Amino acid sequence: MMANEKITQLWSIPEPTLRRLPWYLAFVKLLKGKGESFVSSTQIAKEINVDPSQVAKDLSFVNISGRTRVGYEIGALIAVLEEFLGFTIQHKALLFGVGSLGAALLQDSGLKQYGMEIVAGFDIRPELAGTCIKDIPVFHVNDFPGKQKEYGATIGVITVPVDQAQEVTDYMIAGGIKALWNFTPFRIRVPRHIVVQNTSMYAHLAVMFNRLKLIHHEK
Amino acid sequence: MMANEKITQLWSIPEPTLRRLPWYLAFVKLLKGKGESFVSSTQIAKEINVDPSQVAKDLSFVNISGRTRVGYEIGALIAVLEEFLGFTIQHKALLFGVGSLGAALLQDSGLKQYGMEIVAGFDIRPELAGTCIKDIPVFHVNDFPGKQKEYGATIGVITVPVDQAQEVTDYMIAGGIKALWNFTPFRIRVPRHIVVQNTSMYAHLAVMFNRLKLIHHEK
Repeated sequence: MMANEKITQLWSIPEPTLRRLPWYLAFVKLLKGKGESFVSSTQIAKEINVDPSQVAKDLSFVNISGRTRVGYEIGALIAVLEEFLGFTIQHKALLFGVGSLGAALLQDSGLKQYGMEIVAGFDIRPELAGTCIKDIPVFHVNDFPGKQKEYGATIGVITVPVDQAQEVTDYMIAGGIKALWNFTPFRIRVPRHIVVQNTSMYAHLAVMFNRLKLIHHEK
Repeated sequence: MMANEKITQLWSIPEPTLRRLPWYLAFVKLLKGKGESFVSSTQIAKEINVDPSQVAKDLSFVNISGRTRVGYEIGALIAVLEEFLGFTIQHKALLFGVGSLGAALLQDSGLKQYGMEIVAGFDIRPELAGTCIKDIPVFHVNDFPGKQKEYGATIGVITVPVDQAQEVTDYMIAGGIKALWNFTPFRIRVPRHIVVQNTSMYAHLAVMFNRLKLIHHEK
């Protein structure tokens, strides 16, 4: 396969597929814990509430083939999925904005199991510089260029106030950050070669409250 | 308007609209901070990178009308959006699973600004019972039915390990929880009248890693 074809293939993985694969992974890990050895796409489909043909299609992007009747070998499927999803290598990340949510994320060591290690936090408040949160050092934002030379991080986590989101984004990109994980409700703008993922916790709350209101109306 | 029509109207608010409204809110709050008084849907559209007609359509669900040429009055738009999105009333929540992510969320006081107050945490580990995280008490899971009588919480936050997600879901629903905010990569099953929002942080990581891999291939 030529390099160009490989790129096309990589791009052609639809985002919904990428979002469903971690669900499949979680489920097959659960089965493994129960001592199971094989799993069929029908079984996954039933559990995840997705069409069986969709599961088969999603898994066709991953380098694994199931056996007729018995399905996929669970151990192999877990290994292949974890590698495919990038959870087996540690991606270094820097976090900007050590406020309430930022400090909370620094403390979430669970991210490491999914391939992300936040190695340092940055904040504009001088009193935070030199402190540590669960052994992760916090620096002043002005120290970012120098520290980035040391860390060579690829990912930037944005947990600053909304009015600083764009400025921090530009600053991180100028310093060599390649992907941004944006937790603010602000739509950051980035050059085309920069990856962005928005985790809009507040948007999820808005949907939840709205649906709850409906249930109350019904009564 | 009849009650039934109102329900239909509420249901008819598409989830993408509900997810975009918090972005608009964040942007107009930013404009307010800069001393602006009016904002047009074109201005919002440009900033958020959405079609202007989409912005106008999204805002048509909210009880506000813009004025020709000047647009929406910013103060009024903020007030109406915050109320509409449910950010002005505090929704009580209980959190299950005071591990790494759970403890982090208990410490995120920022959620209160968006209408959610986590009033207590629950965990299966006896040594955590009786402790506090940032003044929020942690109890043993067995104490949930009694505590829920006291709190009357509507929302349950799920940050337990994957293999306990469904059990905890059923337990919370039996205790009167109406909406679940699921942070696990497990697809929980709920009765039709229960609201679920999944915040799949790991799914976002998977997408980010995959897109990053592509950029590296390109070079």
